[in-house]
Amino acid sequence: MKNTVYLDNSTIARPSEKTISAMMPFFSDLWGTPSAPHQKGQELYPALKAGYQSLYTLVGAKEEDTILFTSSGAEAVNHVINSVYHEFTLETGKNQFITTAMEEAAILLGTRRLEHMHCVSKTVQPDENGIITPAAIAAMISPRTALVSLSWANGLTGVIQPVADIAALCHQRGILLHLDATHILGKLFYEIDDIGADFISFNGDQLHAPKGTGALYIRSGTRCSPFIVGGSEQGGLRAGSVNMPCLVGFGCAAKEALETRDYLCTEVARLRDKLERGVEAAVEGSFPFFRKQERLPHCTTIAFPGVANEALLYLMNRKGLYANIGGGSFQQIGLLLHACGVDETLAHSAVSFSLSRYTTDDEIDRAIPIISEAAAQLRKISKGWIP
Amino acid sequence: MKNTVYLDNSTIARPSEKTISAMMPFFSDLWGTPSAPHQKGQELYPALKAGYQSLYTLVGAKEEDTILFTSSGAEAVNHVINSVYHEFTLETGKNQFITTAMEEAAILLGTRRLEHMHCVSKTVQPDENGIITPAAIAAMISPRTALVSLSWANGLTGVIQPVADIAALCHQRGILLHLDATHILGKLFYEIDDIGADFISFNGDQLHAPKGTGALYIRSGTRCSPFIVGGSEQGGLRAGSVNMPCLVGFGCAAKEALETRDYLCTEVARLRDKLERGVEAAVEGSFPFFRKQERLPHCTTIAFPGVANEALLYLMNRKGLYANIGGGSFQQIGLLLHACGVDETLAHSAVSFSLSRYTTDDEIDRAIPIISEAAAQLRKISKGWIP
Repeated sequence: MKNTVYLDNSTIARPSEKTISAMMPFFSDLWGTPSAPHQKGQELYPALKAGYQSLYTLVGAKEEDTILFTSSGAEAVNHVINSVYHEFTLETGKNQFITTAMEEAAILLGTRRLEHMHCVSKTVQPDENGIITPAAIAAMISPRTALVSLSWANGLTGVIQPVADIAALCHQRGILLHLDATHILGKLFYEIDDIGADFISFNGDQLHAPKGTGALYIRSGTRCSPFIVGGSEQGGLRAGSVNMPCLVGFGCAAKEALETRDYLCTEVARLRDKLERGVEAAVEGSFPFFRKQERLPHCTTIAFPGVANEALLYLMNRKGLYANIGGGSFQQIGLLLHACGVDETLAHSAVSFSLSRYTTDDEIDRAIPIISEAAAQLRKISKGWIP
Repeated sequence: MKNTVYLDNSTIARPSEKTISAMMPFFSDLWGTPSAPHQKGQELYPALKAGYQSLYTLVGAKEEDTILFTSSGAEAVNHVINSVYHEFTLETGKNQFITTAMEEAAILLGTRRLEHMHCVSKTVQPDENGIITPAAIAAMISPRTALVSLSWANGLTGVIQPVADIAALCHQRGILLHLDATHILGKLFYEIDDIGADFISFNGDQLHAPKGTGALYIRSGTRCSPFIVGGSEQGGLRAGSVNMPCLVGFGCAAKEALETRDYLCTEVARLRDKLERGVEAAVEGSFPFFRKQERLPHCTTIAFPGVANEALLYLMNRKGLYANIGGGSFQQIGLLLHACGVDETLAHSAVSFSLSRYTTDDEIDRAIPIISEAAAQLRKISKGWIP
């Protein structure tokens, strides 16, 4: 990473050293599996309990709620959608699934797959501020709606959704609500009782946890069946040996995420603002999207009029700056912004930068000239033939 | 593990030191995700390719076949069953799934779950030798059979199934075949072309790999859809960042499994035989089941007439010897043996012991007196009131 600047923490954030150290004993001495019927499994119970406890604390879950440890956020999302189909759609005939045009692929493709099984998936469009309004959801709801599934905040633009209002609407209409909290945990203060979601999923990659970590919160009283069936692990809700090193690492990362939340909301937000102002000053016509909205402290999407974002991403990469334009598990940033009413060409000029608690002032100082040089180079090449 | 004897390697085997070392760089420097659109992802491509290559070699897969890396064998089994439902049952109306009374929980519960979705699961009984005969499967097959799903060998008794004959039957009748190869990899010599299964799943825990590892082989030309949807990872067949440290560790474990296969088949088989003979000599009336069958080299199930296996397991555990009686993800050993026609009380006296390449002569020497003392203690207590 010498001399490079990593501003793609919404895709994956560097695992913390403390987290990795915490995992080590579970590769060497404590290598058993908690479901084994003897001491080699039983010796893991304290660490198992502590790992879960940290996840409960991170989410703000109560003892009577359930938290499952999964292999990824994507698995947790699939778990929710699949379970709602089995537990509600097959029981009640409610077969409509509502999601949004800004979701990541797991929610979009997960609900779409149900269409093979006589379900309907509906997509709510954001308004011009990147917001999914309760009114827009209400307009999609029918008596056959089973689930509303959306991200609490977008990991590329940082725009935070009015989830408490959406939850109130869902509960009033007897509809289950799933929130993906991957990008807000450790970055936003909230009271879980004020939200009242039935399911909350999250991924470890964005929390400086090891890879192979995700979780699913299931509110007490909400019916849920397993996604990976077989075996009695995790109360019968997820088969397969519990991945102890990863659970312990995830628990450690969860603790650190809470401990550093203040820092994220102040210092990292300051660095993000510094990046935005620096880029605006250095690249003519550039501006961050959705600056007036309530946003996450660590990410921003910036427009570079007259530049194609794929070329900019490629050129910055060559110069050692790593950013994101969506695609992969994210919605493409051009499509996402166009859904918010942004002109198509401008939308496809946008790049997302996401910081972490490891991002330094020095890195931002080095990032700004890389961005402005890359943008200038591309504008020079394309002058006259990209509008 | 001081002074303890670990003979439960069919549940989980100690990760090899080489494997753990191989993973380490992917926690510290190489912490990116291969799907990221920049150098931090691209730098992982060589290790990604090498990891897969080792899994292909372990299974004996061809370049045109597909191997998916999953979080567990249970996930891979769920993947097969779910995909057959989506790709075949929904297309063709073939809705019968055949499995066996000796399967582990993922296959049994996975096929049973499909019953909520207008499918039928049928269970083939083994013969008195612990064998699932092609004739017994043929008797269950109907024109609506979609899939036959079974374990290549049982991880408790070690009995190997006549999978080539079962495959021939399935192909003749136009039925897909799924084999779980968890217990045979690195322990059995075979030619994959002689078997011809459509799907082969396996778990890493039994291969001295890190936890959180499993894989699914999909024969070239066999249709398969994702189980965890969302994102383009692994050719769109499994969403979620590829767990690089675990893939690298799994690849290393796969290599070692092939390198030590000869040792497993000779030295470990010798130790297993030594254990069997030692126990037979020390515990009156004890005997290993299925000794005349083709069995895996590393495991055995031994009858202890007049003793309840739960009590024996508990007492051996207290004395530092770790073994297994099924349950958890395994079928209970008593039910499994009873399905083979063993008298119910005798079936519930049986304990399974599974060795690994780390098992030593000294451990077997220490295990035998622990087993015989524990059995003697229990027989003394129960004399007169357990038949």
